[in-house]
Amino acid sequence: MPKTMRAAQLVAYNQPLEIREVEVPQPQGEAVLVKIGGSGLCHSDLHLMHAEIPMLPYLPFTMGHENAGWVEAVGEQVQGFAPGDPVAVFGGWSTKPDRFTWLGEEQLTDVTKWVGIGQPGGYAEYLLVPTYRYLLPLEGLQPVEAAPLTDAGLTPYRALKKLLPDLYPGSTVVIIGVGGLGQFGVQYARALTPSCTVVAIDVDENKLRIARDLGADETINSRQADPVERIKAMTGGEGAQGIVDFVGADTTMQQAYQMAGRQAKVVFVGLAGGSFPFGTRLLNEATFTTSSWGTLAELSEVLALARKGVAKPHIQRVRFEEMNQAFEDLAHGRIEGRAVLVP
Amino acid sequence: MPKTMRAAQLVAYNQPLEIREVEVPQPQGEAVLVKIGGSGLCHSDLHLMHAEIPMLPYLPFTMGHENAGWVEAVGEQVQGFAPGDPVAVFGGWSTKPDRFTWLGEEQLTDVTKWVGIGQPGGYAEYLLVPTYRYLLPLEGLQPVEAAPLTDAGLTPYRALKKLLPDLYPGSTVVIIGVGGLGQFGVQYARALTPSCTVVAIDVDENKLRIARDLGADETINSRQADPVERIKAMTGGEGAQGIVDFVGADTTMQQAYQMAGRQAKVVFVGLAGGSFPFGTRLLNEATFTTSSWGTLAELSEVLALARKGVAKPHIQRVRFEEMNQAFEDLAHGRIEGRAVLVP
Amino acid sequence: MPKTMRAAQLVAYNQPLEIREVEVPQPQGEAVLVKIGGSGLCHSDLHLMHAEIPMLPYLPFTMGHENAGWVEAVGEQVQGFAPGDPVAVFGGWSTKPDRFTWLGEEQLTDVTKWVGIGQPGGYAEYLLVPTYRYLLPLEGLQPVEAAPLTDAGLTPYRALKKLLPDLYPGSTVVIIGVGGLGQFGVQYARALTPSCTVVAIDVDENKLRIARDLGADETINSRQADPVERIKAMTGGEGAQGIVDFVGADTTMQQAYQMAGRQAKVVFVGLAGGSFPFGTRLLNEATFTTSSWGTLAELSEVLALARKGVAKPHIQRVRFEEMNQAFEDLAHGRIEGRAVLVP
Amino acid sequence: MPKTMRAAQLVAYNQPLEIREVEVPQPQGEAVLVKIGGSGLCHSDLHLMHAEIPMLPYLPFTMGHENAGWVEAVGEQVQGFAPGDPVAVFGGWSTKPDRFTWLGEEQLTDVTKWVGIGQPGGYAEYLLVPTYRYLLPLEGLQPVEAAPLTDAGLTPYRALKKLLPDLYPGSTVVIIGVGGLGQFGVQYARALTPSCTVVAIDVDENKLRIARDLGADETINSRQADPVERIKAMTGGEGAQGIVDFVGADTTMQQAYQMAGRQAKVVFVGLAGGSFPFGTRLLNEATFTTSSWGTLAELSEVLALARKGVAKPHIQRVRFEEMNQAFEDLAHGRIEGRAVLVP
Repeated sequence: MPKTMRAAQLVAYNQPLEIREVEVPQPQGEAVLVKIGGSGLCHSDLHLMHAEIPMLPYLPFTMGHENAGWVEAVGEQVQGFAPGDPVAVFGGWSTKPDRFTWLGEEQLTDVTKWVGIGQPGGYAEYLLVPTYRYLLPLEGLQPVEAAPLTDAGLTPYRALKKLLPDLYPGSTVVIIGVGGLGQFGVQYARALTPSCTVVAIDVDENKLRIARDLGADETINSRQADPVERIKAMTGGEGAQGIVDFVGADTTMQQAYQMAGRQAKVVFVGLAGGSFPFGTRLLNEATFTTSSWGTLAELSEVLALARKGVAKPHIQRVRFEEMNQAFEDLAHGRIEGRAVLVP
Repeated sequence: MPKTMRAAQLVAYNQPLEIREVEVPQPQGEAVLVKIGGSGLCHSDLHLMHAEIPMLPYLPFTMGHENAGWVEAVGEQVQGFAPGDPVAVFGGWSTKPDRFTWLGEEQLTDVTKWVGIGQPGGYAEYLLVPTYRYLLPLEGLQPVEAAPLTDAGLTPYRALKKLLPDLYPGSTVVIIGVGGLGQFGVQYARALTPSCTVVAIDVDENKLRIARDLGADETINSRQADPVERIKAMTGGEGAQGIVDFVGADTTMQQAYQMAGRQAKVVFVGLAGGSFPFGTRLLNEATFTTSSWGTLAELSEVLALARKGVAKPHIQRVRFEEMNQAFEDLAHGRIEGRAVLVP
Repeated sequence: MPKTMRAAQLVAYNQPLEIREVEVPQPQGEAVLVKIGGSGLCHSDLHLMHAEIPMLPYLPFTMGHENAGWVEAVGEQVQGFAPGDPVAVFGGWSTKPDRFTWLGEEQLTDVTKWVGIGQPGGYAEYLLVPTYRYLLPLEGLQPVEAAPLTDAGLTPYRALKKLLPDLYPGSTVVIIGVGGLGQFGVQYARALTPSCTVVAIDVDENKLRIARDLGADETINSRQADPVERIKAMTGGEGAQGIVDFVGADTTMQQAYQMAGRQAKVVFVGLAGGSFPFGTRLLNEATFTTSSWGTLAELSEVLALARKGVAKPHIQRVRFEEMNQAFEDLAHGRIEGRAVLVP
Repeated sequence: MPKTMRAAQLVAYNQPLEIREVEVPQPQGEAVLVKIGGSGLCHSDLHLMHAEIPMLPYLPFTMGHENAGWVEAVGEQVQGFAPGDPVAVFGGWSTKPDRFTWLGEEQLTDVTKWVGIGQPGGYAEYLLVPTYRYLLPLEGLQPVEAAPLTDAGLTPYRALKKLLPDLYPGSTVVIIGVGGLGQFGVQYARALTPSCTVVAIDVDENKLRIARDLGADETINSRQADPVERIKAMTGGEGAQGIVDFVGADTTMQQAYQMAGRQAKVVFVGLAGGSFPFGTRLLNEATFTTSSWGTLAELSEVLALARKGVAKPHIQRVRFEEMNQAFEDLAHGRIEGRAVLVP
């Protein structure tokens, strides 16, 4: 195990990442050192880099919250993992045991301790994971393909799972926004729901075509037609039973609110910063909630789906030297699928 | 069975009810004629009388949607009920079988067919109930005490039941608004939740005193303290796990939104016409919904609670001749508990 | 509407059905007369005919509990159905409103009132349905294909639905017995579960081949291998998360008990009369229950699945004159799929 | 921190415990050393001591799985706990992360690693807890009263919680066996269920009197009356909706099976080694399961109930020198409430 490693660090806000030589942390107790096989580049990193989401605890800081790789070294209390084991890293870390930790919902406990956001992340050759309990065996998946599943694949999965108890054969599921997460959303809607009609809504014909390829039964271009009217028409006036909004703008949130049928479930995932006026005139008992990342159990289910060929993202491999260009491309919508650092 | 009966009818909007002699309907098929023992005067009748909720199908019209009494006569297909049987009348009628009817949620199917709103109601000596399936045996309760349970007692019950799966010993339940429905809400919170801390919020010290008498552990006068801050302080910063807003004004809805803890359930029942901006910044997975009346099964549970001494409303008996005065009193907040017509 | 009609009636136990001319009942109130388009021949009829299930209320009696056809005439209180409408008939009738009726689980209320078992059924030209609330619009399905869905298609659907809350991607679902109901079971497991591994168990290689054709991932011939050991081996020692036993013999029930993983759900549907010793040594919190027919809402979901091409049974049309031969064939396992009377 | 401590160890099967001087373990990484304030004597220890449950990994061995005390020393990775903090110790330890660990159900993962059964327990002055994640702050409770809550209080709590989704006001809950765990069961049924009728069944009049004192509405002495008939009579023939059998003998299990109403939930907790024939004749969709210890979240709820005065056990303090006598008394039913070692 080397003493130092390369890491792509944010040294100042609104500046490119710098490749710096930093110390390799040593795993003690339950901790595990993971050699990064892939670390996904995520849109929310852009918000962190530009201080729009002012959460980084200090600078220089190593971001990277979508990680997978191989166990490099283990602390003396680690059980069940040995050097060389390929693993995915669950990232919703916390240090404060509370009810949500006890229930396996640790990602809801302390956002300031998440990997790559509150603690050093995977844009480096090695990542220190505080406990082996955050690791999942890959069992046949490659680290580079597993990395983006830990967030881009996991977040829409949790959102879709929230719909399942309210769906039934013949009911209608709507995916609003068919970007990176929404494409997973369409695939999950197809794979997880019981013979529902899956409808995808977007403003981009190319994305709607992808949605159809991924299994959407119907698509609506919301620039060309009122999606609320279209959904009402498709459902005999009832509205949809399950809706996930992967955009989160004023418009899409208002549409989701209005197209929800009786006792429908509506989940908002997108972070475009929108809102809508929630009133009581609409007494149809539809339910509205948000969804935040996912659990270890849910990540294990996402990996199982990937092994069955559901939820295979298109991967673009990136070297340290290419990261700033890749973030530039990401900011301008020029990345197909997911860019993943392969150190 | 007499040919005609007295009924208190709305003859013109914004006019007092008139006591008129009308035909007694004859029950056929599955229908049952019920001799009214009590028909509750409800605040929403005021909205109907003043055309603020423009739902009455024609005039003159007999309102009255909280009904109980005795079976007077039965159609030839009626099973299990005989003249003289004391019964409560479920009021969320519909004529259109659909998924919600099949699931026992008929009150969600067709609001235009509800008793006393879309079809003639109980402000009369007799009420025609279209099927014996809408009747529940009273089994020891008096019709005059059962009548207000069918709406004023049922609506808050359904709202509180929506909270139950998310509560646990030591969690906090908040009742906003301790009027007629909110007082049931406090009692149900006390009786149904598993050793939760029950907090009542109102602007009226007298109502807060009643809330404490009914079992609230804590009360907050929202004129004197910020209820959001108080709830956060009581819960170590977490927020409440269950909230029912029986007011539904902009202020209370916004407060409910802000005091909701992680994965909390918030139910809006009050119809004051408010709204709040639902955004995605608050990613704590709290869930927001509305609640509308209740089911037959839920009404049977309310009657069971009443038999056990939970949910006993204070009743003020009213004769036909006193109804207009009673509605006047109701409009000005001068009714303690519930006014019930006893024809 | 004719005064008399042909009906295939049981006149004496252990005798062939007789085709007799009987009166056509007249629908009154909420009742509907349905012209039979198809009435499925069911194995349980054999038990009734041989007095093994001694439930027929009188003789001569018209059996037939899987019915679909067209509305012929309606009582004066019927809403939303008119002569000529193609309909499926829900069969779990009851006359006693109770909690299960209120909850839309009427089939659990009074087995002695089920159509074709406690009240005259569909082995006739016309069937009197006591209320239009038991009818579902066919919306594109043919009566002859819809008829067997009302029991043979519905019963396994309800059983499979009981598993769903406990399944997750990568978990294992076991169908024991791939006869008529089990074949629906395999199809539902394939269509409804979220990327689970579907395993079918039978003693007949031909049926296991059908199971694979219908989507089973794995099959086990329990004559050739110990299915408990095989399931344990497939699941890393854990056992299956969902099991439906469509046989219900001592052996299969014991196997289901032993192959159940932690917190698994096991549903017994088959009526072979078996049992197994349920002990407390196995403290893995697996849950065991039975499943009985299905609800109106579930039947509507089965019809939705049939419209999407899931759950299409192989139909063998039978005329009145061929019914006794068809029952003979049914008794000897010579019917492929479902035999349906087309009067 | 001393180098050695006293521990009551099992040196040979069927022999009294010996008080021996053993090494004090040193906490490293996430581990915590707890100074024992109370360690409950449990009936299952008798089974271990007599090799009836052959699970001890080696001898001499320190049993004791109901533990509470004060943090004495912490490993270098411990967060949120400091020496002197009063804590309860969750005991369902495991070292193998799997789905149940991820879901906060770690006690279901590896029984061979439970404290006091597979790893050294609390019959000593100090206990090494492998991670601070197993600790709950006492917040006002005394260690000696909290200790028995971690098993004797927790196990019946989890069993009762399994009933809750199936109960409603007016439904009937049955507790079979009013010994130590059953007494908690009666208290939980009273505190957690929504105005249900709570019925306790035992063969001992004294225990039935205690049950009434703890809030049972009805009691049945099953030596004097057939409890199945009595429950059926109390419930209009329906049967109970929730049943917990704290005995687990052939007789009680058979009774629980027979007194279960439609869709009832029956939970078996008692380990008397009984069984009953589970058949398919009873098609009422009642559900049967077992319950095993409890989760960290559930333990936190039990502590919350204790703080509110529910679930306060009668405690008999025992010194090291009195332990063998106390186990003797326990074996012969001479302990009132719970005996707790106070070192």
